[in-house]
Amino acid sequence: MNAVVDYINVHRDRYVDELKQYLAIPSISALPEHSGDVRRAAEWTADALRTAGMNNVRLIDTPGNPVVYGDWLNAPGKPTILFYGHYDVQPVDPVNLWTSPPFEATVRDGEIYARGAADDKGQVFMHIKAIEAYLKQGGSLPVNIRFFIEGEEEVGSVHLDDFVRAHRDDLKADVLVISDTTMFDRGVPSICYSLRGLAYFQIDVRGSKSDLHSGVFGGAVANPAIVLAQILAQMKDRGGRIKIPGFYDDVRPLSDEERAEWKKLPFNETRYRKDLGAPKLFGESGYTTLERVWARPTLDVNGLHSGFTGEGAKTVLPATAMAKVSMRLVPNQDPQKIGDLFEAYVRKIAPKTVEVKITRMHGGKPWMTEFDNKFVRAAGRAIEQGFGKSPVFVREGGSIPVVATFERELGLPSVLFGVGLPDENAHAPDEKLDLGNFHNGIIASAYLYQEIANT
Amino acid sequence: MNAVVDYINVHRDRYVDELKQYLAIPSISALPEHSGDVRRAAEWTADALRTAGMNNVRLIDTPGNPVVYGDWLNAPGKPTILFYGHYDVQPVDPVNLWTSPPFEATVRDGEIYARGAADDKGQVFMHIKAIEAYLKQGGSLPVNIRFFIEGEEEVGSVHLDDFVRAHRDDLKADVLVISDTTMFDRGVPSICYSLRGLAYFQIDVRGSKSDLHSGVFGGAVANPAIVLAQILAQMKDRGGRIKIPGFYDDVRPLSDEERAEWKKLPFNETRYRKDLGAPKLFGESGYTTLERVWARPTLDVNGLHSGFTGEGAKTVLPATAMAKVSMRLVPNQDPQKIGDLFEAYVRKIAPKTVEVKITRMHGGKPWMTEFDNKFVRAAGRAIEQGFGKSPVFVREGGSIPVVATFERELGLPSVLFGVGLPDENAHAPDEKLDLGNFHNGIIASAYLYQEIANT
Repeated sequence: MNAVVDYINVHRDRYVDELKQYLAIPSISALPEHSGDVRRAAEWTADALRTAGMNNVRLIDTPGNPVVYGDWLNAPGKPTILFYGHYDVQPVDPVNLWTSPPFEATVRDGEIYARGAADDKGQVFMHIKAIEAYLKQGGSLPVNIRFFIEGEEEVGSVHLDDFVRAHRDDLKADVLVISDTTMFDRGVPSICYSLRGLAYFQIDVRGSKSDLHSGVFGGAVANPAIVLAQILAQMKDRGGRIKIPGFYDDVRPLSDEERAEWKKLPFNETRYRKDLGAPKLFGESGYTTLERVWARPTLDVNGLHSGFTGEGAKTVLPATAMAKVSMRLVPNQDPQKIGDLFEAYVRKIAPKTVEVKITRMHGGKPWMTEFDNKFVRAAGRAIEQGFGKSPVFVREGGSIPVVATFERELGLPSVLFGVGLPDENAHAPDEKLDLGNFHNGIIASAYLYQEIANT
Repeated sequence: MNAVVDYINVHRDRYVDELKQYLAIPSISALPEHSGDVRRAAEWTADALRTAGMNNVRLIDTPGNPVVYGDWLNAPGKPTILFYGHYDVQPVDPVNLWTSPPFEATVRDGEIYARGAADDKGQVFMHIKAIEAYLKQGGSLPVNIRFFIEGEEEVGSVHLDDFVRAHRDDLKADVLVISDTTMFDRGVPSICYSLRGLAYFQIDVRGSKSDLHSGVFGGAVANPAIVLAQILAQMKDRGGRIKIPGFYDDVRPLSDEERAEWKKLPFNETRYRKDLGAPKLFGESGYTTLERVWARPTLDVNGLHSGFTGEGAKTVLPATAMAKVSMRLVPNQDPQKIGDLFEAYVRKIAPKTVEVKITRMHGGKPWMTEFDNKFVRAAGRAIEQGFGKSPVFVREGGSIPVVATFERELGLPSVLFGVGLPDENAHAPDEKLDLGNFHNGIIASAYLYQEIANT
């Protein structure tokens, strides 16, 4: 093990240089014009797996972006890890808010800035480099491992369920490891045991067949942007509680034990608010901020568009208005059922003066595991060795729908082994990754394989 | 007069060909990238005035787009008409909804399709061609006339007030004629005696310093798009009445006589609704559709933007949300006072969880004249001669803020002498002008000069 850690320390700078190349590929899965880049990122990932010494490396086509597969299965009698990550990234708009170009990785103050640095290329690369250290140094790994890196995570992993069902044999394992989550805070490594799910919709409202002159027709027909505003305004009450009937029916209440544990965490609400640049925090009344983002469902508008949005003043009465609306779900809410409730509610409150179209964009189930799972405990020991302190056990507000898929389809327990930080702007301008955490994360990954081998 | 009308009839097709050239210039004043085209349209207008035989034709610079001036003042003892129009046009988005390109004028079924066809190049050109007919045919006009064609009408005529004050002597006249309004319906020529005013605003809401991941932070901070929706939803009650305190204080009530006259107009509400493609008409309760658009103030959202509006699903919690909001005002509302009321109301209802910025974009006062004004009666006779039937007297829902400016600064009565049709898509895709009305409008304009000469 010492030789492996020495190798990781010696090659620290080279690892960062290679990561920069990976981050230079604009693999934005949400934008069709980047489909070539997405494919290029898949090939780059496969090459990196081959360089590390993995076997059977290949791109497996899906109806969307290819999956990158590779394995090392030469540890008979030892457990098999299925490692999941993604090589696609979020869009970069508004690009003018980036300090350095999103696809020219730049190191400032020990952090590497680029789209995908934290979410998820940096964390995928951390595992590839831990494996390289083992295979270059001793020629073997203490466990069996399969890599499964997809290219559609940022667009809802639309083909993943079918893929997993069709490739059960290629994915046979004992535990799923994912590094796509954040630590609780700088210097506070953590293991995450629950994630929120997602239900994402688009609402399109049409008031007339084409845009109208607001002087000539203003006052005679419903304004679709106002109707949309009225619909959205009826989604939450003043206390931040979602008004969709039945929305909270399946929510698993927070346990007193969890609430008590979380109160002990080093959470500074003032700093949190200032970091976000928010005039005031706001959420469901009766819950703390951590409880709101980890264990309570929420509803957000992700996008709005209607009429004229350029500079100046166009006196148009728009024909249409559009909103993207998503809900974060918690155990035991079901995205399908929530979708039905949402759709029924929107139809009920929408006036007859407009046409309303509701499109279900994608959804993912929330997920939760138990603290005393042996793999989770192994991960705790690995974190302690990589970061020099034992982790705290936390939930996360984000969604990794594949966790639920792998549990359902393959019966696999999951270990969420993330080294991002909460202020690393995963879906915003100036995304970054702390290079100290990247380095310690490689060491912790190396220990993780050994700890899982010993379970 | 017969010779003038003969000339107009003989040159009918050439007039349309020339109009097509005018409509080919994309003089969109709202978009800075078209500033060269705006200038080009000004020069084209000046050339057309020179060709028609007018004197002293020149471009007069303003801090924005130039004014085109020209005159013919050789009818001593006769009244002087100040003719006002504009050579700038609205933007063309969404351009994919145009049947033919907006700046390649195309004739289909007796109508010419292009941006600016009705609003206002086609109607300006109608007067230029009436003057050409007089001056080419007999060498003189029965009245004195000054042309004043501006290039900033579609962006609120921002420099017009100052310009009029600075050029009082150049604009000295007895009556203002404007052709920028529509007839009541196809085959129902009309004279308009009142216009609505305008107060236009932009609201910018900020919830955090940058876009956030909606999974990680959803539930902890106010969503600016939802806050904006809540603000907009509080603008009107369910009966379509505007909730801004004091908004209706200065509204001049409809007279019983007007309401009775309008009930006699050939207005088909079902056809109107179907033409607009609206599922249902909607407006302030207690008023008919005509009353709502002509004589009642209204509030519309002209544009909305927040977060991610592309294809697909981006899980962003937006930092900002923007709405463009405008009110159509009626006599005797004042845009400045309404702006103060609007701003105070938005500040009052906005929560402390966001920063709100309100920008006053532009405003114009509503206008009203009396039926029995001698110039209005002269216009009625001219319409009768050009269109073969006497006009109806109507109001219009749109705003021509310059009418109030000319009344205030120069003490001029106004005649609104418009030949557009209500379905001509003035601010929308597929703007068009009926060529029969264009032709009859040239003849009616020629009669108008004679009728005014005889007042």
